[in-house]
Amino acid sequence: MAEVLHMADEKVFLAFSTYATIVILKMLLMAPLTAYFRVTKKVFANPEDTWMEKNAEEKKKMLRTDADVERVRRCHLNDLENIIPFVLIGLLYSLTGPELSTALLHFRVFVGSRIFHTVAYVACLPQPSRGLSWVVGLAVTFSMAYRVLTTGLFL
Amino acid sequence: MAEVLHMADEKVFLAFSTYATIVILKMLLMAPLTAYFRVTKKVFANPEDTWMEKNAEEKKKMLRTDADVERVRRCHLNDLENIIPFVLIGLLYSLTGPELSTALLHFRVFVGSRIFHTVAYVACLPQPSRGLSWVVGLAVTFSMAYRVLTTGLFL
Amino acid sequence: MAEVLHMADEKVFLAFSTYATIVILKMLLMAPLTAYFRVTKKVFANPEDTWMEKNAEEKKKMLRTDADVERVRRCHLNDLENIIPFVLIGLLYSLTGPELSTALLHFRVFVGSRIFHTVAYVACLPQPSRGLSWVVGLAVTFSMAYRVLTTGLFL
Repeated sequence: MAEVLHMADEKVFLAFSTYATIVILKMLLMAPLTAYFRVTKKVFANPEDTWMEKNAEEKKKMLRTDADVERVRRCHLNDLENIIPFVLIGLLYSLTGPELSTALLHFRVFVGSRIFHTVAYVACLPQPSRGLSWVVGLAVTFSMAYRVLTTGLFL
Repeated sequence: MAEVLHMADEKVFLAFSTYATIVILKMLLMAPLTAYFRVTKKVFANPEDTWMEKNAEEKKKMLRTDADVERVRRCHLNDLENIIPFVLIGLLYSLTGPELSTALLHFRVFVGSRIFHTVAYVACLPQPSRGLSWVVGLAVTFSMAYRVLTTGLFL
Repeated sequence: MAEVLHMADEKVFLAFSTYATIVILKMLLMAPLTAYFRVTKKVFANPEDTWMEKNAEEKKKMLRTDADVERVRRCHLNDLENIIPFVLIGLLYSLTGPELSTALLHFRVFVGSRIFHTVAYVACLPQPSRGLSWVVGLAVTFSMAYRVLTTGLFL
């Protein structure tokens, strides 16, 4: 274990730590964004969430789905599906002792692609902008996974 | 890397390891809870899941959505959205060498807030109980992310 | 911290790194599989995703849900709910210094169970094949969590 860890450069780990935290914070902000749309558009999933409304008739109307809310929720789920694998594989990748410049390139491209992905999703930018940003992020994760598997394969 | 790791206190890491495992186990229990509601209420998402029923008519009726099942599923998804970022950022936070008492405060408040969140969600407690527990958990994660970014920013 | 890490065997960590990467890659492939079903069956969730179709009438028809697409999406969500906890608890487990053979048994059974789970889900194999593979994976994660909590409990 110690050997594995010594292979890694301290700077690579600090860079990983910084970019991983930034991209997780971006993901966490999707929840307040969903809450914002829910409150401003008065669209809720749980009966108890309509507590601020007194009128029973109005309460019922609030329990529906809304295109904008569902859009933000899909974007959030896509973040979970892509950002968490990046962080997990990125952690293992950082311990394989990559070049700092190569590692930074991976981390920066990924974080950039995911920020663009969110903008493209929430602002309904014309395709294939969103699709391409998703592919770029996926490619970064696959590239890091390739290094992890080729550096220390142990089956 | 070694330097980064030596900054961290062994006790902080053991505390992180303990609380992270507890809160992940709590999250994992949402799946059996969903299964329990599915089986007792006879509500399934896949045709092959109705295998125990022989009557074709009855089988079809089981393929529907149910308010209670959807509630547990939303709670589970909310766990994924909040608990996994806590564990990932908490791991990086543990390596920044925080005070043991400060770290324990973060871990305990988060785990407490998420257990309360689950109770509030599944038992339909009146709002804003669930909302507040969600905000408390989010605040803990943001506080740890702040420390990670201020201790070892490397862009 | 150093003490914690020295407890672990380098080979156990490399084995964890290998199996974790493989099972995360498997999870990541669910997204292209969803995209494949969406494109071939012409079923989309966002209006802008129908950009390749010019006819406005046809575009509208593409915005629906489809049983096969929803099946792959449920399989993907199930992966998120099970594979990520495995990787997170597996990381902590690898640092508790388990026997290499025991660790390999855990990792291999989990990865095997999840690959079988995906096949069973996407190919609609008769139950309880999918249910059993899910339970096996869950049991592996619980077994690792048990070791983490009994080796270094710090509340």
